[in-house]
Amino acid sequence: MEPSLNFSDSQTIAAISTPPGKGGIAIVRISGPNALSIVNSAWKGVDLTSVASHTAHLGKYISSDGEIIDEGVATIFLAPHSFTGENIVELGVHGSSFIQREILNDLIRRGVRIAAPGEFTQRAFLNGKIDLAQAEGIADLIASSSKAAHDMAINQTRGKFSKEFNSLRDKLIEFASLLELELDFSEEEVEFADRKSLMQLCREIILKIDALAASFLRGRVLKNGVPVVIAGIPNAGKSSLLNLLLNDEKAIVTDIPGTTRDTIEDTAEFDGVIYRFIDTAGLRQTEDIVEGIGVKRARESLEKAFIVLWLIDPTQSITQQVRMMKDFHLSHSSIHLIPLITKSDLDLEKLTLNEKSSAEYETDNQTEFVLSAQDSAIQTDPVSLMIDSENQTVSSSIDSLYPIQFSSLTHQGLDSLINRLKEITTDGADPISDIIVTNSRHYEALQKASQALSRGLTSLSEGTSADLIAQDIREAITHLSLITGSITTTDLLHSIFSRFCIGK
Amino acid sequence: MEPSLNFSDSQTIAAISTPPGKGGIAIVRISGPNALSIVNSAWKGVDLTSVASHTAHLGKYISSDGEIIDEGVATIFLAPHSFTGENIVELGVHGSSFIQREILNDLIRRGVRIAAPGEFTQRAFLNGKIDLAQAEGIADLIASSSKAAHDMAINQTRGKFSKEFNSLRDKLIEFASLLELELDFSEEEVEFADRKSLMQLCREIILKIDALAASFLRGRVLKNGVPVVIAGIPNAGKSSLLNLLLNDEKAIVTDIPGTTRDTIEDTAEFDGVIYRFIDTAGLRQTEDIVEGIGVKRARESLEKAFIVLWLIDPTQSITQQVRMMKDFHLSHSSIHLIPLITKSDLDLEKLTLNEKSSAEYETDNQTEFVLSAQDSAIQTDPVSLMIDSENQTVSSSIDSLYPIQFSSLTHQGLDSLINRLKEITTDGADPISDIIVTNSRHYEALQKASQALSRGLTSLSEGTSADLIAQDIREAITHLSLITGSITTTDLLHSIFSRFCIGK
Repeated sequence: MEPSLNFSDSQTIAAISTPPGKGGIAIVRISGPNALSIVNSAWKGVDLTSVASHTAHLGKYISSDGEIIDEGVATIFLAPHSFTGENIVELGVHGSSFIQREILNDLIRRGVRIAAPGEFTQRAFLNGKIDLAQAEGIADLIASSSKAAHDMAINQTRGKFSKEFNSLRDKLIEFASLLELELDFSEEEVEFADRKSLMQLCREIILKIDALAASFLRGRVLKNGVPVVIAGIPNAGKSSLLNLLLNDEKAIVTDIPGTTRDTIEDTAEFDGVIYRFIDTAGLRQTEDIVEGIGVKRARESLEKAFIVLWLIDPTQSITQQVRMMKDFHLSHSSIHLIPLITKSDLDLEKLTLNEKSSAEYETDNQTEFVLSAQDSAIQTDPVSLMIDSENQTVSSSIDSLYPIQFSSLTHQGLDSLINRLKEITTDGADPISDIIVTNSRHYEALQKASQALSRGLTSLSEGTSADLIAQDIREAITHLSLITGSITTTDLLHSIFSRFCIGK
Repeated sequence: MEPSLNFSDSQTIAAISTPPGKGGIAIVRISGPNALSIVNSAWKGVDLTSVASHTAHLGKYISSDGEIIDEGVATIFLAPHSFTGENIVELGVHGSSFIQREILNDLIRRGVRIAAPGEFTQRAFLNGKIDLAQAEGIADLIASSSKAAHDMAINQTRGKFSKEFNSLRDKLIEFASLLELELDFSEEEVEFADRKSLMQLCREIILKIDALAASFLRGRVLKNGVPVVIAGIPNAGKSSLLNLLLNDEKAIVTDIPGTTRDTIEDTAEFDGVIYRFIDTAGLRQTEDIVEGIGVKRARESLEKAFIVLWLIDPTQSITQQVRMMKDFHLSHSSIHLIPLITKSDLDLEKLTLNEKSSAEYETDNQTEFVLSAQDSAIQTDPVSLMIDSENQTVSSSIDSLYPIQFSSLTHQGLDSLINRLKEITTDGADPISDIIVTNSRHYEALQKASQALSRGLTSLSEGTSADLIAQDIREAITHLSLITGSITTTDLLHSIFSRFCIGK
């Protein structure tokens, strides 16, 4: 199926393809049927309309007013052997903001149109140079700032991704053709397709599609940065931990509970994965209006976390803190939780603790367990304390609840924390060899394909007639085809390419 | 005279030549004897060591770990037909921050050295591709953000500038050779060089050099942005004028005198020239500590202005304001002054004015002239008022003191103001055809050459012996040679090229 070409036009387009701003070199890219003749009309040097493809030529760009804008290099790529499949000139000029602006303005006067974001890649797609998933991979590749994001995007641009979808699609087409053969002979009540093996095939494809869809949650956070929320009671050491992870004095740290009120976030990269660490206001009931808003925002952040670092302050009521953490864990079992017992640098033996802390925690009036100088159970076996303090089963992810003894001062536990983050984030997947879905459009298409197939499977098991089953299979095929763009719509193309950066 | 080559080394260097950040394309430039073989060792595609110069090749960049970093285009420029005169590979890759970083890191592992800022241009100079003034022109070209700055820089890169200096130098060399001929025959007391025509030549060259040096003040402000300070008493309308010129609500505007305390500045471009407009605290004596600091800063800004817009508030004491302005003008005659009578939208007939304003101006206890509803002289002929109010001659630039009736509300006088700015800034010079000195290094060299020649001229008129005169002439030649780099030192090269951006 060919993409509809009415979305394209035959105009010659141009844009600055290099990053915005000042630099040694900037590239002005011109693509379209008149690319060569337009640039040539401004070019003092060799006749660009008569040179070979893939050659570079030194010359001067002269404005329509006859003034030299710059001396530069024009590199020529002739259709169809170019990125877009059209004639392309790439002008390498000095990267001043003035030169970039002037050349683009002058090209407009000579008849080019400014390229829309992603329009070069869109033309590459429309001219059959790449498929839609590959095009989206290019956008992801440019946006990638970590190894994990880069590797997934490279995979996608190389077509490995598309190959996977196309093989699923081919199986479904075979499936559908068997069913349709039956329809042709419907009056004869023949079953060309063995129902049992059809059901088996359908189940296999659903499993495969669901596995791909399941990789999306991980793929999305790997691509955009893994949201890690730092939570706990006031003064548990959340801002100190944030600053340590960011290696920056991002958050203001004081001894005063309630110092952090805004939700503060920034990214850091460990082992090729970008994490978005989010420091929140300490969880307590407060009279302070600004702090109250902060606590509300902290709770909202927790809902959106992929991982929560739950900080437990050993100088305050442990029971209460563990209960808060468990309550959160029970109601948000899909969010990964890492408990940290902070301030491990303190000599708790010497601590004089008040039975009641100065801050008012959200309490349910049960007896508070306050770590005293005599009670060092938490130091020797904090886990048993956390598990035993209530008779509740702490879900399946019990392993991840094993707490890390941590100190922002001595960095004790930092390596363990980073390893734990890595384990949770990659979960054994390899971004460079595994197919990981990172694009919400692909995820939705996979879900819809899976739903259609499930309906088909039900119909098969109920002995429904072939034409109804074929309808479900065709719907699944359509959804898979939308991923690689073998079926497409103008709206879809617009929504994909408008997200590109200018010049690509 | 060849530049000393010990400043160079034979290592292969690499850098990102495109602006920092994310974009469709980034260029990694590699230059040096091993550029081709190093890139080729990472390249999956055609053998780059055996292709023709000025050709572009699609391929994949594979890291030392065997992973695909990107698919891109390698463009080859073979020595000596390249920018640096060495072998160059320009790798056009996807402009993600990750890819740029990874390729550079991988190239380092393969034996390249990261290029110092300006090192490619420096190699172009050391390999005799360009002279020093041209190299500096390239840096200026990349930095230029206005037409005026761009045109001056293009002039310099094209060598027009160098040609001018070299012609002056050639005249001096001829001059010196005549004198040195005398030295060879010194025992015979022959005067090969006619003293009178020598003095004439010397005077001509000094005039030429001084004219070039004189263009520096204008050239510098055209290059860096013309500093225009907005001054006047509190509440005269300075911040409103700033916002109007910037087309932005940059400064907070209220009716309260003393609202602006910080010095606020931003740039705007009119007719290809960048102006740096600087809003200052209103000039008055104040008890407020922060405002006091502001007034001090305002006075400091005035010292550094190229143009001062002096705002006169017609609702306050005119005499006093005119006196302040004239005092400034008399003590800073080289700073261009444009008086603006603000608030021209007000119907002054209807104004009820206090004989004393609420703000305490710096006063010398003379009778204040307060514009009253009955006194409309300032509206019909403000100039006569300004000139006649004191019997002082107001310097030579009397024309520029003709005030503009101005309103930030109705924009009355805005066009006149912009025209006046343009007249003062360009003063008839054309940045694209005239030689304008913009570089302080060139300016200093010109001054030193002029001083040496002046000493020579004095010696000539005093009938001093030829060898002493020849020494002055040689000194002048040296200074002119330093401009184009036909004489150079390691320190000089370092100070010039370290100011470049990375990758050029």
